[in-house]
Amino acid sequence: MSNIIKQKIRTVPHWPKQGIMFRDITTLLKDSEGFNHTVDLLIERYKDMKIDIVAGIESRGFITGAVLAHRLGLGFVPIRKPGKLPAETVSEEYELEYGTDKIEVHTDAIQKGAQVLLVDDLIATGGTALAACNLITKLGGHVVECSFIIDLIDIGGKKKLMDAGFKVFSLVVFEGE
Amino acid sequence: MSNIIKQKIRTVPHWPKQGIMFRDITTLLKDSEGFNHTVDLLIERYKDMKIDIVAGIESRGFITGAVLAHRLGLGFVPIRKPGKLPAETVSEEYELEYGTDKIEVHTDAIQKGAQVLLVDDLIATGGTALAACNLITKLGGHVVECSFIIDLIDIGGKKKLMDAGFKVFSLVVFEGE
Repeated sequence: MSNIIKQKIRTVPHWPKQGIMFRDITTLLKDSEGFNHTVDLLIERYKDMKIDIVAGIESRGFITGAVLAHRLGLGFVPIRKPGKLPAETVSEEYELEYGTDKIEVHTDAIQKGAQVLLVDDLIATGGTALAACNLITKLGGHVVECSFIIDLIDIGGKKKLMDAGFKVFSLVVFEGE
Repeated sequence: MSNIIKQKIRTVPHWPKQGIMFRDITTLLKDSEGFNHTVDLLIERYKDMKIDIVAGIESRGFITGAVLAHRLGLGFVPIRKPGKLPAETVSEEYELEYGTDKIEVHTDAIQKGAQVLLVDDLIATGGTALAACNLITKLGGHVVECSFIIDLIDIGGKKKLMDAGFKVFSLVVFEGE
Protein backbone atom coordinates (compact mmCIF):
# COMPACT_ATOMS: atom_id res chain seq x y z
CA MET A 1 0.00 0.00 0.00
CA SER A 2 2.56 2.52 1.11
CA ASN A 3 4.81 1.38 -1.77
CA ILE A 4 2.53 3.35 -4.06
CA ILE A 5 3.26 6.40 -1.94
CA LYS A 6 6.99 5.78 -1.96
CA GLN A 7 6.98 5.54 -5.74
CA LYS A 8 5.25 8.89 -6.07
CA ILE A 9 7.82 10.71 -3.89
CA ARG A 10 10.55 12.25 -6.01
CA THR A 11 14.17 12.02 -4.91
CA VAL A 12 16.26 15.07 -5.80
CA PRO A 13 19.95 14.20 -5.35
CA HIS A 14 22.34 16.71 -3.80
CA TRP A 15 19.71 19.18 -2.67
CA PRO A 16 19.90 21.49 -0.78
CA LYS A 17 23.56 20.47 -0.68
CA GLN A 18 26.03 17.84 -1.90
CA GLY A 19 25.34 14.39 -0.47
CA ILE A 20 21.72 14.97 0.56
CA MET A 21 19.03 12.90 -1.17
CA PHE A 22 16.03 15.19 -0.85
CA ARG A 23 12.67 13.42 -0.64
CA ASP A 24 10.18 15.66 -2.40
CA ILE A 25 6.49 15.11 -1.62
CA THR A 26 5.24 17.66 -4.16
CA THR A 27 5.03 14.89 -6.78
CA LEU A 28 2.87 12.87 -4.39
CA LEU A 29 0.60 15.78 -3.49
CA LYS A 30 -0.05 16.98 -7.03
CA ASP A 31 -1.19 13.46 -7.94
CA SER A 32 -4.84 13.21 -6.90
CA GLU A 33 -4.63 9.46 -6.32
CA GLY A 34 -1.39 9.70 -4.40
CA PHE A 35 -2.65 12.53 -2.21
CA ASN A 36 -5.96 10.82 -1.57
CA HIS A 37 -4.31 7.50 -0.78
CA THR A 38 -1.90 9.21 1.65
CA VAL A 39 -4.79 10.80 3.52
CA ASP A 40 -6.85 7.60 3.54
CA LEU A 41 -4.01 5.58 5.07
CA LEU A 42 -3.54 8.16 7.81
CA ILE A 43 -7.28 8.37 8.48
CA GLU A 44 -7.44 4.59 8.73
CA ARG A 45 -4.87 4.83 11.52
CA TYR A 46 -6.39 7.75 13.41
CA LYS A 47 -10.16 7.48 12.93
CA ASP A 48 -10.75 5.49 16.10
CA MET A 49 -8.16 7.12 18.34
CA LYS A 50 -9.20 9.67 20.92
CA ILE A 51 -7.93 12.92 19.43
CA ASP A 52 -9.21 16.41 20.25
CA ILE A 53 -7.21 18.56 17.87
CA VAL A 54 -4.55 18.30 15.15
CA ALA A 55 -1.39 20.45 15.18
CA GLY A 56 0.73 20.88 12.05
CA ILE A 57 4.28 22.17 11.80
CA GLU A 58 4.97 25.03 9.32
CA SER A 59 4.82 24.76 6.43
CA ARG A 60 4.50 21.31 4.86
CA GLY A 61 2.91 19.96 8.04
CA PHE A 62 0.03 22.35 7.34
CA ILE A 63 -0.89 20.37 4.22
CA THR A 64 -1.57 16.91 5.63
CA GLY A 65 -2.27 18.28 9.12
CA ALA A 66 -5.17 20.42 7.94
CA VAL A 67 -6.63 17.63 5.82
CA LEU A 68 -6.44 15.16 8.72
CA ALA A 69 -8.09 17.66 11.06
CA HIS A 70 -10.89 18.20 8.57
CA ARG A 71 -11.43 14.51 7.87
CA LEU A 72 -11.48 13.75 11.61
CA GLY A 73 -13.96 16.58 12.20
CA LEU A 74 -11.48 18.46 14.41
CA GLY A 75 -9.89 21.87 14.63
CA PHE A 76 -6.39 22.63 13.33
CA VAL A 77 -3.53 24.40 15.13
CA PRO A 78 -0.55 25.82 13.23
CA ILE A 79 2.85 25.58 14.93
CA ARG A 80 4.84 28.36 13.31
CA LYS A 81 8.20 29.98 12.84
CA PRO A 82 8.89 32.94 15.13
CA GLY A 83 7.07 36.22 14.61
CA LYS A 84 4.18 34.83 12.57
CA LEU A 85 1.50 34.37 15.24
CA PRO A 86 -0.17 37.61 16.36
CA ALA A 87 -1.52 36.74 19.81
CA GLU A 88 0.23 35.48 22.95
CA THR A 89 2.55 32.57 22.21
CA VAL A 90 4.84 30.08 23.89
CA SER A 91 8.03 29.21 22.07
CA GLU A 92 10.60 26.46 22.12
CA GLU A 93 14.14 26.50 20.83
CA TYR A 94 15.78 23.63 18.98
CA GLU A 95 19.22 22.99 17.59
CA LEU A 96 20.18 23.22 13.96
CA GLU A 97 23.39 21.98 12.38
CA TYR A 98 24.75 25.47 13.03
CA GLY A 99 23.01 27.53 15.72
CA THR A 100 19.44 27.30 16.92
CA ASP A 101 15.94 28.03 15.70
CA LYS A 102 12.58 28.48 17.38
CA ILE A 103 8.96 27.54 16.88
CA GLU A 104 5.85 29.01 18.46
CA VAL A 105 2.23 28.27 19.13
CA HIS A 106 -0.59 30.44 20.46
CA THR A 107 -1.08 29.86 24.19
CA ASP A 108 -4.84 29.56 23.65
CA ALA A 109 -4.44 27.05 20.83
CA ILE A 110 -4.41 23.94 22.99
CA GLN A 111 -6.61 23.27 25.99
CA LYS A 112 -5.24 21.63 29.12
CA GLY A 113 -5.72 17.88 28.84
CA ALA A 114 -6.31 17.96 25.07
CA GLN A 115 -5.27 14.90 23.08
CA VAL A 116 -3.17 16.33 20.24
CA LEU A 117 -2.11 14.65 17.02
CA LEU A 118 1.12 16.25 15.79
CA VAL A 119 1.67 16.24 12.02
CA ASP A 120 4.59 17.03 9.75
CA ASP A 121 5.58 15.76 6.33
CA LEU A 122 8.94 14.28 7.24
CA ILE A 123 11.09 13.39 10.22
CA ALA A 124 14.86 13.73 9.90
CA THR A 125 16.75 14.80 13.06
CA GLY A 126 13.46 15.19 14.94
CA GLY A 127 14.58 18.52 16.37
CA THR A 128 11.55 20.50 15.22
CA ALA A 129 9.12 17.72 16.09
CA LEU A 130 10.54 17.35 19.59
CA ALA A 131 10.29 21.11 20.11
CA ALA A 132 6.67 20.93 18.92
CA CYS A 133 5.95 18.08 21.36
CA ASN A 134 7.46 20.16 24.15
CA LEU A 135 5.27 23.14 23.20
CA ILE A 136 2.15 21.00 23.30
CA THR A 137 3.21 19.56 26.66
CA LYS A 138 3.94 23.06 28.03
CA LEU A 139 0.34 24.02 27.30
CA GLY A 140 -0.96 20.95 29.14
CA GLY A 141 -1.78 18.96 26.02
CA HIS A 142 -0.94 15.30 25.51
CA VAL A 143 0.74 14.26 22.24
CA VAL A 144 -1.20 11.22 21.03
CA GLU A 145 1.35 10.54 18.31
CA CYS A 146 3.79 12.32 15.99
CA SER A 147 2.68 11.48 12.47
CA PHE A 148 4.79 11.82 9.33
CA ILE A 149 4.56 10.78 5.72
CA ILE A 150 8.31 10.06 5.57
CA ASP A 151 10.81 8.83 8.15
CA LEU A 152 14.48 9.27 7.22
CA ILE A 153 15.22 6.52 9.68
CA ASP A 154 19.02 6.62 9.64
CA ILE A 155 19.13 10.25 10.80
CA GLY A 156 17.66 9.15 14.10
CA GLY A 157 14.72 11.48 14.70
CA LYS A 158 12.27 8.69 15.45
CA LYS A 159 14.58 7.31 18.14
CA LYS A 160 15.06 10.80 19.60
CA LEU A 161 11.28 11.32 19.91
CA MET A 162 10.69 7.84 21.32
CA ASP A 163 13.51 8.28 23.84
CA ALA A 164 11.70 11.40 25.01
CA GLY A 165 8.53 9.35 25.50
CA PHE A 166 6.58 10.24 22.36
CA LYS A 167 4.93 7.85 19.90
CA VAL A 168 5.98 8.08 16.26
CA PHE A 169 4.35 6.88 13.06
CA SER A 170 5.33 7.28 9.43
CA LEU A 171 3.77 5.96 6.23
CA VAL A 172 7.07 5.27 4.49
CA VAL A 173 10.70 4.89 5.50
CA PHE A 174 13.75 5.90 3.49
CA GLU A 175 17.18 4.61 4.47
CA GLY A 176 20.41 6.57 4.08
CA GLU A 177 20.72 10.30 4.50
CA MET B 1 -23.72 32.02 7.16
CA SER B 2 -20.36 33.71 6.73
CA ASN B 3 -21.15 35.88 9.76
CA ILE B 4 -20.36 32.85 11.89
CA ILE B 5 -16.97 32.75 10.23
CA LYS B 6 -16.38 36.45 10.75
CA GLN B 7 -17.19 36.10 14.44
CA LYS B 8 -14.63 33.33 14.85
CA ILE B 9 -11.81 35.38 13.30
CA ARG B 10 -9.83 37.20 15.98
CA THR B 11 -8.75 40.77 15.42
CA VAL B 12 -5.37 41.65 16.94
CA PRO B 13 -4.98 45.43 16.98
CA HIS B 14 -1.64 47.02 16.10
CA TRP B 15 0.04 43.86 14.84
CA PRO B 16 2.55 43.47 13.30
CA LYS B 17 2.74 47.25 13.64
CA GLN B 18 0.88 50.29 14.92
CA GLY B 19 -2.36 50.96 13.06
CA ILE B 20 -2.80 47.49 11.54
CA MET B 21 -5.84 45.46 12.60
CA PHE B 22 -4.57 41.94 12.08
CA ARG B 23 -7.25 39.39 11.16
CA ASP B 24 -6.19 36.11 12.76
CA ILE B 25 -7.74 32.93 11.36
CA THR B 26 -6.13 30.63 13.96
CA THR B 27 -9.19 31.06 16.19
CA LEU B 28 -11.40 29.98 13.28
CA LEU B 29 -9.24 26.98 12.37
CA LYS B 30 -8.88 25.58 15.88
CA ASP B 31 -12.68 25.58 16.22
CA SER B 32 -13.89 22.36 14.60
CA GLU B 33 -17.25 23.87 13.66
CA GLY B 34 -15.70 27.03 12.31
CA PHE B 35 -13.11 25.15 10.27
CA ASN B 36 -15.67 22.69 8.94
CA HIS B 37 -18.13 25.43 8.05
CA THR B 38 -15.41 27.37 6.21
CA VAL B 39 -14.53 24.35 4.11
CA ASP B 40 -18.18 23.48 3.42
CA LEU B 41 -18.95 26.97 2.15
CA LEU B 42 -15.95 26.85 -0.18
CA ILE B 43 -16.83 23.36 -1.38
CA GLU B 44 -20.39 24.47 -2.07
CA ARG B 45 -18.93 27.10 -4.39
CA TYR B 46 -16.38 24.92 -6.17
CA LYS B 47 -17.89 21.45 -6.30
CA ASP B 48 -19.44 21.87 -9.73
CA MET B 49 -16.77 24.02 -11.34
CA LYS B 50 -14.32 22.49 -13.77
CA ILE B 51 -11.09 22.43 -11.75
CA ASP B 52 -8.10 20.17 -12.39
CA ILE B 53 -5.82 21.07 -9.50
CA VAL B 54 -5.64 23.37 -6.46
CA ALA B 55 -2.64 25.61 -5.76
CA GLY B 56 -2.05 27.10 -2.31
CA ILE B 57 0.23 29.99 -1.39
CA GLU B 58 2.74 29.41 1.46
CA SER B 59 2.02 29.06 4.28
CA ARG B 60 -1.58 29.71 5.38
CA GLY B 61 -2.84 29.02 1.87
CA PHE B 62 -1.61 25.45 2.37
CA ILE B 63 -4.24 24.92 5.07
CA THR B 64 -7.48 25.58 3.20
CA GLY B 65 -5.87 24.83 -0.18
CA ALA B 66 -4.96 21.28 0.78
CA VAL B 67 -8.36 20.61 2.32
CA LEU B 68 -10.17 21.92 -0.76
CA ALA B 69 -7.98 19.81 -3.05
CA HIS B 70 -8.73 16.74 -0.96
CA ARG B 71 -12.47 17.37 -0.78
CA LEU B 72 -12.63 17.99 -4.53
CA GLY B 73 -10.66 14.80 -5.19
CA LEU B 74 -7.79 16.73 -6.78
CA GLY B 75 -4.06 17.12 -6.35
CA PHE B 76 -2.44 20.00 -4.47
CA VAL B 77 0.38 22.30 -5.61
CA PRO B 78 2.36 24.41 -3.13
CA ILE B 79 3.46 27.86 -4.31
CA ARG B 80 6.44 28.62 -2.11
CA LYS B 81 8.93 31.19 -0.97
CA PRO B 82 12.29 31.12 -2.80
CA GLY B 83 14.72 28.26 -2.18
CA LYS B 84 12.18 25.81 -0.77
CA LEU B 85 11.33 23.73 -3.84
CA PRO B 86 14.01 21.22 -4.84
CA ALA B 87 13.31 20.61 -8.54
CA GLU B 88 13.15 23.00 -11.50
CA THR B 89 11.04 26.06 -10.74
CA VAL B 90 9.67 29.22 -12.32
CA SER B 91 9.57 32.28 -10.14
CA GLU B 92 7.82 35.62 -10.10
CA GLU B 93 8.77 38.79 -8.29
CA TYR B 94 6.32 41.06 -6.52
CA GLU B 95 6.57 44.35 -4.71
CA LEU B 96 6.54 44.78 -0.96
CA GLU B 97 6.15 48.03 0.93
CA TYR B 98 9.95 48.21 0.89
CA GLY B 99 11.73 46.22 -1.81
CA THR B 100 10.58 43.05 -3.54
CA ASP B 101 9.99 39.39 -2.79
CA LYS B 102 9.60 36.29 -4.92
CA ILE B 103 7.49 33.15 -5.07
CA GLU B 104 8.16 29.93 -6.93
CA VAL B 105 6.43 26.84 -8.23
CA HIS B 106 7.79 23.63 -9.73
CA THR B 107 7.67 23.78 -13.54
CA ASP B 108 6.12 20.30 -13.61
CA ALA B 109 3.46 21.19 -11.04
CA ILE B 110 0.88 22.49 -13.50
CA GLN B 111 0.04 20.97 -16.87
CA LYS B 112 -0.60 23.13 -19.93
CA GLY B 113 -4.30 23.88 -20.10
CA ALA B 114 -4.98 22.90 -16.49
CA GLN B 115 -7.84 24.67 -14.73
CA VAL B 116 -6.28 25.86 -11.47
CA LEU B 117 -8.02 27.06 -8.32
CA LEU B 118 -5.68 29.42 -6.43
CA VAL B 119 -6.12 29.53 -2.65
CA ASP B 120 -4.80 31.75 0.11
CA ASP B 121 -6.22 32.72 3.48
CA LEU B 122 -6.41 36.46 2.93
CA ILE B 123 -6.10 39.11 0.23
CA ALA B 124 -4.65 42.50 1.17
CA THR B 125 -2.58 44.26 -1.52
CA GLY B 126 -2.96 41.25 -3.81
CA GLY B 127 0.75 41.33 -4.69
CA THR B 128 1.47 37.72 -3.82
CA ALA B 129 -1.77 36.45 -5.34
CA LEU B 130 -1.14 38.29 -8.61
CA ALA B 131 2.40 36.88 -8.74
CA ALA B 132 0.92 33.41 -8.14
CA CYS B 133 -1.61 33.94 -10.96
CA ASN B 134 1.24 34.98 -13.24
CA LEU B 135 3.21 31.84 -12.33
CA ILE B 136 0.23 29.62 -13.15
CA THR B 137 -0.27 31.48 -16.43
CA LYS B 138 3.45 31.15 -17.29
CA LEU B 139 3.12 27.37 -17.02
CA GLY B 140 0.11 27.38 -19.36
CA GLY B 141 -2.48 26.92 -16.61
CA HIS B 142 -5.73 28.85 -16.38
CA VAL B 143 -6.69 30.43 -13.06
CA VAL B 144 -10.34 29.49 -12.50
CA GLU B 145 -10.59 31.80 -9.48
CA CYS B 146 -8.50 33.24 -6.65
CA SER B 147 -10.17 32.10 -3.45
CA PHE B 148 -9.69 33.61 -0.02
CA ILE B 149 -11.29 33.36 3.38
CA ILE B 150 -10.82 37.09 4.02
CA ASP B 151 -10.79 40.12 1.74
CA LEU B 152 -9.37 43.31 3.27
CA ILE B 153 -11.34 45.19 0.65
CA ASP B 154 -10.06 48.71 1.30
CA ILE B 155 -6.45 47.75 0.59
CA GLY B 156 -7.43 47.09 -3.01
CA GLY B 157 -6.08 43.62 -3.79
CA LYS B 158 -9.34 42.34 -5.24
CA LYS B 159 -9.48 45.25 -7.67
CA LYS B 160 -5.84 44.69 -8.64
CA LEU B 161 -6.50 41.02 -9.46
CA MET B 162 -9.73 41.78 -11.31
CA ASP B 163 -8.06 44.55 -13.32
CA ALA B 164 -5.51 41.95 -14.37
CA GLY B 165 -8.34 39.70 -15.60
CA PHE B 166 -8.61 37.24 -12.71
CA LYS B 167 -11.73 36.22 -10.80
CA VAL B 168 -11.76 36.73 -7.05
CA PHE B 169 -13.88 35.24 -4.28
CA SER B 170 -13.77 35.64 -0.51
CA LEU B 171 -15.98 34.27 2.24
CA VAL B 172 -15.85 37.40 4.38
CA VAL B 173 -14.92 41.04 3.90
CA PHE B 174 -13.33 43.34 6.44
CA GLU B 175 -13.32 47.06 5.88
CA GLY B 176 -10.57 49.43 6.98
CA GLU B 177 -6.90 48.53 7.03
